[in-house]
Formats: sequence, structure tokens, C-alpha cells
Amino acid sequence: MWRLHQHPLCPFSRKVRLALGEKGVEFDMVKVAPWDAPDSFYSLNPAGRTPVLQHREKKIVLADSQAICEYLEEVSDERPLILGTALGRAEIRRLVALFDEQLWGDVTGPLMHEKYRKRVHLRQGPDSRVLRSAMRLLHEHMDYMDWLIDNRRWLAGAQLSLADFAAAAQLSVIDYLGGIEWSDHKGVHEWYRVMKSRPAFRGLLADKVEGLPPPRGYNDPNS
Amino acid sequence: MWRLHQHPLCPFSRKVRLALGEKGVEFDMVKVAPWDAPDSFYSLNPAGRTPVLQHREKKIVLADSQAICEYLEEVSDERPLILGTALGRAEIRRLVALFDEQLWGDVTGPLMHEKYRKRVHLRQGPDSRVLRSAMRLLHEHMDYMDWLIDNRRWLAGAQLSLADFAAAAQLSVIDYLGGIEWSDHKGVHEWYRVMKSRPAFRGLLADKVEGLPPPRGYNDPNS
Repeated sequence: MWRLHQHPLCPFSRKVRLALGEKGVEFDMVKVAPWDAPDSFYSLNPAGRTPVLQHREKKIVLADSQAICEYLEEVSDERPLILGTALGRAEIRRLVALFDEQLWGDVTGPLMHEKYRKRVHLRQGPDSRVLRSAMRLLHEHMDYMDWLIDNRRWLAGAQLSLADFAAAAQLSVIDYLGGIEWSDHKGVHEWYRVMKSRPAFRGLLADKVEGLPPPRGYNDPNS
Repeated sequence: MWRLHQHPLCPFSRKVRLALGEKGVEFDMVKVAPWDAPDSFYSLNPAGRTPVLQHREKKIVLADSQAICEYLEEVSDERPLILGTALGRAEIRRLVALFDEQLWGDVTGPLMHEKYRKRVHLRQGPDSRVLRSAMRLLHEHMDYMDWLIDNRRWLAGAQLSLADFAAAAQLSVIDYLGGIEWSDHKGVHEWYRVMKSRPAFRGLLADKVEGLPPPRGYNDPNS
């Protein structure tokens, strides 16, 4: 069986969990803290990052969330997530990279460090300048997502795709950390409610990390 | 015809130039400074990043270097760069992500800022702590590349692949910025000489940026 080495608040782990869930692939999970990973984890992934997808019986080890999602896409016919024409797939991949790299780098990463790592592991207070900058950039990212949703059925076009799951994975972590002013972004809010109600999202929303409970409404698909 | 919006020292632009060259796709180029891009560039790529590949007649705009490379792979049969089995392709994509994200974030990005942006555009001296940290991390990355080359014909396996071009694109920028102690990494040096001698590499090595000439040996395939 597949085993996912992941962290509950890692948005890239969440993206892969959603892809596995949508495709109906069975897997179990092992928790790894990427900032405190054992040597055995580096032997699975020299980059030291979650997620890693492993199949011990078949001796398969896959690392990097996008490499994993592309692999799943190639070996499974269930619910294609990188779909459509070559141009359509390029648009899906452009948006996945935008969310995985820029939304992560601008918002999710800094919030994770300030609101989770510092508070729970380093026993420090957050840097309010970093928080303010992250919130300002989140607002810009969500403006762009509002624009996409105003013009398309789903983020990358007419079909639900990996772009939606990559964005929802990042937003779910930001939401856990109490960072989203939904009232300013009704389009994204409505889209995110629909994403939250998908079966693959359930396990993810039930996950908690020690020392930091999620805010009210976080795991309620109607909120 | 295809037009690449790029910057001569952007390793992601270089990666796409190499892929286009290897596949024999004709293109011309427009220079864009990602840190000072005009509004018209943001309308092509809301992420504001180089490279963007545009085909005006066909009204195609592609952004994000990996999305572009995956697109070229899907529409061209010439010299496959993401090739082999699904597992082999996952290994290529894992390494591309390692070089595009971690080698960039640890080394190329900080060196670009300290040695090029600060010197040429901001008229500031570099921060020696940042330079030292980048050089230490470069050493670790090159140790890992040495290990790959000791165990495989090319970085991702038996075949030349996009992983080699992604790595060479980053190293070529680091080399331009005078950052590589080749003598410590003979395996990588030998592999990089072979990469430099490929026809697709020529135009890239002839490129210069104002105010910062490359060091001796930079564009010599035998050096």
C-alpha cells in the first residue's frame, strides 16, 4: 500500500492527499516535521521536504508534490486533474506553480513560521511586520482568484483541476492559522465552500496540530 | 513565431531557452527585468516572472518555466526531455524541482541579489554573510550532484533529461556570477563541460549583462 510521509499543516502534503483522495488511491500516513526530520527521512528525500509518497512492497519512493501529482496523473485514469488540451494543461500547471510557489512564499510560508513554528516550537511571539505583509499579499492573491472565478467555472477553466486543489490546500492552511478575511472575497469564499464539501477534503479538515487548535468554522463546509 | 520574454541572468529563462534549442523550436527574444517589469508584462504573466513564451499569431501565452517545458514536451516529438517510464519521469521532475526551487532559493537567488542586483542596480555592496551561506549551500548541492553523476550516466538516470538542463541553467548563472569552485567537484565539472558544449548552450553563454562581465572561462566549453 502507498504511504504518505506528510505534515498536517504542510500545504504540499495536503495537495497530494487531495489528489490521492480524488483518484481513490488508498494510502496510510506517517507524520514528519520537515524542520526536524530524522536522517531516515533524508534518505527518502534528500531535499528534506514533505510530502514523500512511498510504496514499500514495490520499492517506489516519490518526492516533490508536483512530481507526485504528475505521476498519479500518468498511472491513474481516475478523475484526471491535469486535463484538457496541451494549452489547458499549461494553464493548470501555471496556476499550480503560482499557488505552490508564490502564494506559499508570500503568505502560507511566512504565516506557518510566525503563527505556528514560533509559537508552538520556538516559544516566540510573531513578528507583526511579517504578518501584515503576508496579509496584504494574501489580499492580492485572493483578488486574482476572485477574478479567475468571475471569468471561469473553476480556477483554470471549465473543469475542476489540480489548480483548484493546489489553491485550496494553501488556503486551508492559511485558514487554519486564522488568516482569512472571507468577507472581502465572496467569490473565493463560495468556491472554497464547494471545495471543502468534497469527500477528499474531510480527513484533511479533521486534522489538528498540538498546541494550536483551528479557529471556528475552519472545518465546517458551510462556514 | 515564438517569442520568449526573458532575462539573460534568469535561470528559468535559460532552462526554457535550452529546451527550445534542444527541440529545434525557432524563437526570438525580448529582454525583461522581472524586478522592474512594465504593466504590459504583468498582463502576460500576473506572477510578474520571467520567462513567458508567447505566440502572437496563435494568441498563445505560456508562463512558468516548468509549465512551458511540459507544454513543449507534449506538442513536440523532438528530443524528449521528460522521458522514460512514469517512475523515470517522476525522478526527472523531482530533480527539476530540487534545482528550480532549492538550488535557486539557497544559492542562485541570493547570489543574483547580492552580486548583480545590489551592485548594478542598487549601487550597494554585497552582504558577506549571505554570500558565505550561499557558497556553503552550493557546496552541499554540488556534493549531491557529484553523487548523482557517480551513480548515473546523467543526473536523472541513463538519459539526458530536463533535470540536466535545469541544473545547468542554475549553475551557468552561478558561474557567471563567479561563484563556483570547480576544483572541489570534478564530477560535476566534467558533466558541466559536456553540457556547455551542446549547441543549445552557445547563445546563452554569449549573453552578457551591462555592468557585470562574466569571469574568464565562463563561456569556454573546455574550461
